[in-house]
Amino acid sequence: MNVKMTRYIIGKMMGVEGILLLIPMAVGMLHGEASASYFLVTSGLLIVCFMIFGRKRPENTVIYAKEGLVIVASAWIFWSIFGALPFFLSGTIPNYIDAFFETVSGFTTTGSTILTDIEILPRGMLFWRSLTHWIGGMGVLVFVLVITSLDERNCMHLMRAEVPGPEADKLVPKARNTAQLLYGMYFVLTAAEVILLLFGGLNLFDSVTHAFSTAGTGGFSSYNASVGHFNSAYVEGVITVFMILFGINFNLYFFLILRDFKSVWKNEELRTYLGIIAAAVAIIVINITPMYESIEKAFRYASFQVASVITTTGFITADFNLWPELSKCVLLMLMVVGASAGSTGGGIKVSRFLILLKSIKREIKQMLHPKSVTIVKVNGKKVKEETMRAVYVYFIAYILIMIVSVLLVSINNFDFETTFTSVLTTMNNVGPGLGLVGAVENFAKFTGFSKIILCLDMLVGRLEIFPFLMLFSPALWRKKF
Amino acid sequence: MNVKMTRYIIGKMMGVEGILLLIPMAVGMLHGEASASYFLVTSGLLIVCFMIFGRKRPENTVIYAKEGLVIVASAWIFWSIFGALPFFLSGTIPNYIDAFFETVSGFTTTGSTILTDIEILPRGMLFWRSLTHWIGGMGVLVFVLVITSLDERNCMHLMRAEVPGPEADKLVPKARNTAQLLYGMYFVLTAAEVILLLFGGLNLFDSVTHAFSTAGTGGFSSYNASVGHFNSAYVEGVITVFMILFGINFNLYFFLILRDFKSVWKNEELRTYLGIIAAAVAIIVINITPMYESIEKAFRYASFQVASVITTTGFITADFNLWPELSKCVLLMLMVVGASAGSTGGGIKVSRFLILLKSIKREIKQMLHPKSVTIVKVNGKKVKEETMRAVYVYFIAYILIMIVSVLLVSINNFDFETTFTSVLTTMNNVGPGLGLVGAVENFAKFTGFSKIILCLDMLVGRLEIFPFLMLFSPALWRKKF
Repeated sequence: MNVKMTRYIIGKMMGVEGILLLIPMAVGMLHGEASASYFLVTSGLLIVCFMIFGRKRPENTVIYAKEGLVIVASAWIFWSIFGALPFFLSGTIPNYIDAFFETVSGFTTTGSTILTDIEILPRGMLFWRSLTHWIGGMGVLVFVLVITSLDERNCMHLMRAEVPGPEADKLVPKARNTAQLLYGMYFVLTAAEVILLLFGGLNLFDSVTHAFSTAGTGGFSSYNASVGHFNSAYVEGVITVFMILFGINFNLYFFLILRDFKSVWKNEELRTYLGIIAAAVAIIVINITPMYESIEKAFRYASFQVASVITTTGFITADFNLWPELSKCVLLMLMVVGASAGSTGGGIKVSRFLILLKSIKREIKQMLHPKSVTIVKVNGKKVKEETMRAVYVYFIAYILIMIVSVLLVSINNFDFETTFTSVLTTMNNVGPGLGLVGAVENFAKFTGFSKIILCLDMLVGRLEIFPFLMLFSPALWRKKF
Repeated sequence: MNVKMTRYIIGKMMGVEGILLLIPMAVGMLHGEASASYFLVTSGLLIVCFMIFGRKRPENTVIYAKEGLVIVASAWIFWSIFGALPFFLSGTIPNYIDAFFETVSGFTTTGSTILTDIEILPRGMLFWRSLTHWIGGMGVLVFVLVITSLDERNCMHLMRAEVPGPEADKLVPKARNTAQLLYGMYFVLTAAEVILLLFGGLNLFDSVTHAFSTAGTGGFSSYNASVGHFNSAYVEGVITVFMILFGINFNLYFFLILRDFKSVWKNEELRTYLGIIAAAVAIIVINITPMYESIEKAFRYASFQVASVITTTGFITADFNLWPELSKCVLLMLMVVGASAGSTGGGIKVSRFLILLKSIKREIKQMLHPKSVTIVKVNGKKVKEETMRAVYVYFIAYILIMIVSVLLVSINNFDFETTFTSVLTTMNNVGPGLGLVGAVENFAKFTGFSKIILCLDMLVGRLEIFPFLMLFSPALWRKKF
């Protein structure tokens, strides 16, 4: 393994986080908050790390897939470790494990919180929480690629390790340009949401923080009642639409820019994604209408919650913990399915489910006609057997990690619904679960041990298992490389 | 598809069930029960079916894997439909769906019951319940192979479709002899348990019925308190040991007969299976000791329950619903893991889990060294890529069917623990779940719709998904064959 180059890139990354921390510092200072100084302290620490590791470019700059995976996994961990410092040092979150949990939840765009009262937080801290969502959504490393310069092949290894979905596509020949393009579209969409929220009567701070949380499909709000706080059908409508938009593969927006409407319209993942949303909303509306005054109100809550959960955002307007079991189970299923590949959303991803379902169909076909050769197509293109196998193993690892996590979290001795859904919601980067981690609850009640397990689940979910699992592989740490 | 031959074999099967029903009839008559006559009525019906379909051998007797799967799936459904009649006609179980549920639960060796009071049942009916476990355990079709004559290649297709595990081995060159050998060992082990239970002071009826339920890893007892009724450490010990024995691949007993001790000792699945049992017992003992007077008592309950759940038997001596969450989650995990391939137990099977775990390890290795070629070995033998893929797709289909079932059962609006574990316990053919389907509860409270879904789950679990899934495949019913 090229340790020097790995260290160099991680060092660079830390510098980037150091600069990034100046933004919430500025927000805090504008509001005259003393806590803003802790952003500067942390920033200073990170700049020192950058000076030590990230300044001198090593002679051998060649890295491979392996280094890409190690860099991605380590970068996310270091960003979380340092990103938690402002919360901890300022005393906003007095326990470091809690501060770490909150930061991991931010970067991984989970949105689970350990805070019992969000509204008492300084503005700078609230801004930092939302900013972690925004950066984490499109990718910490993809962001670094935008603002630093690296060799093309190195960029590709890093992107491949971080961008979610069964296959990483490049939009344009160069990975760095792809990264810039992705962030460009991301920025425009976010800005559009900010403007629309301002029209809805939100102040600039609320508009920006909620747009950041929507864009990253994170779910942190600056209010205890989440988006329900505004109690405005317009605001909920805007956020519903934008959650759905951010759950779509960004490649499709690029097709729109190229005026290639056919590719968008024919996209199988998009159709399935929208189909699942429509079906889930229909089932839940029928199921919950008796609970509300009118079918309109049921539709308003159902559509917001479905969009929030399938995109793994986790904003809340209604306490779905009180809904009938069928609606709750539909939401749990949406958590697992997740959004589209190449979007900012989490979960297993719709395209992976398409591959899984089609491979079952193929298996049955081959049992009926043992000599036939059947290929699996998604979006009209043949899926390589290699990709299929990767998807299978991904799903298997996902389920097995879930089982082990449930076992470890069950030591807390909470009820099964709480235990199971706390793992489900963190692994899929959603935010709220059911029971004691339901819509109006939080994660403060867990022991430190469980919080660490849940942090690992968030990272495993966001980084799609393997970069992270590899860090724990003895084969990586053997000398012989 | 060779429809004539399919019909012929199914017709034969029905005749076999007709003869089988004479055994519980005899038991009922010995106890002077009027209800015994309904066994005769059902038997008569089945013999008529046999006369119509199963007497004239068609000219073309060639069948393929496809027909094997269809025959196995249909045979199990027909046996259950007719097997439920004595319960229903005699009024023992007044609702036909309930009677069907009880029979499917019997044949699939699940052991979930809709009865609220088992002890009031006539002896003949109780005997029939246990006999369904015994026949279902080793396999309905394997049983038919033992007592009828079919071509060698036909036998093999049927065995392959019914015997659980990732690969069906033949012990001896001929499939029919293999079937005879399997039932021979099965009979000897069952007889040994009967004798040991008689020594424990049980009467002949209780000894035979409980040995049948142990052997099939079913779990029906003739007492409301299950095995806890006897309150005897000796009886519990005997049953614990035999549950574990019946959860071992029967091929290993054949190796013992051949005095090939090395193959048994080196068997990876056996070692893993025993290792999981030991680990689970250890965790649960530590976890529940504070609940009981002594560590001995905790060990007695824990070891019985672990053996009962991993082998998917489902006998009960302690209400584990009251145990701490960790112990409950360990039991849920054991339900999914299940027993060994080629045993009478259900679940996903230890050998499949070995393959799944090793394939994750291989994936990581290949990420680290993209050019290396790694093979997966189980029991020292290379696992074919084809088998690996079948295991992957099996696992995927298993999880997806579970998700859909949970959704459908959630319409009942029971709590999440009940909904989730009712599906888990039926799909893995265990018997009891948690919450409202916990150790001392039953399935009477579900709606007819849910009961049918759970029946399908039991069949899907016992037949290992594909024979059953194929029946619903449109490709099967298309003319062009």
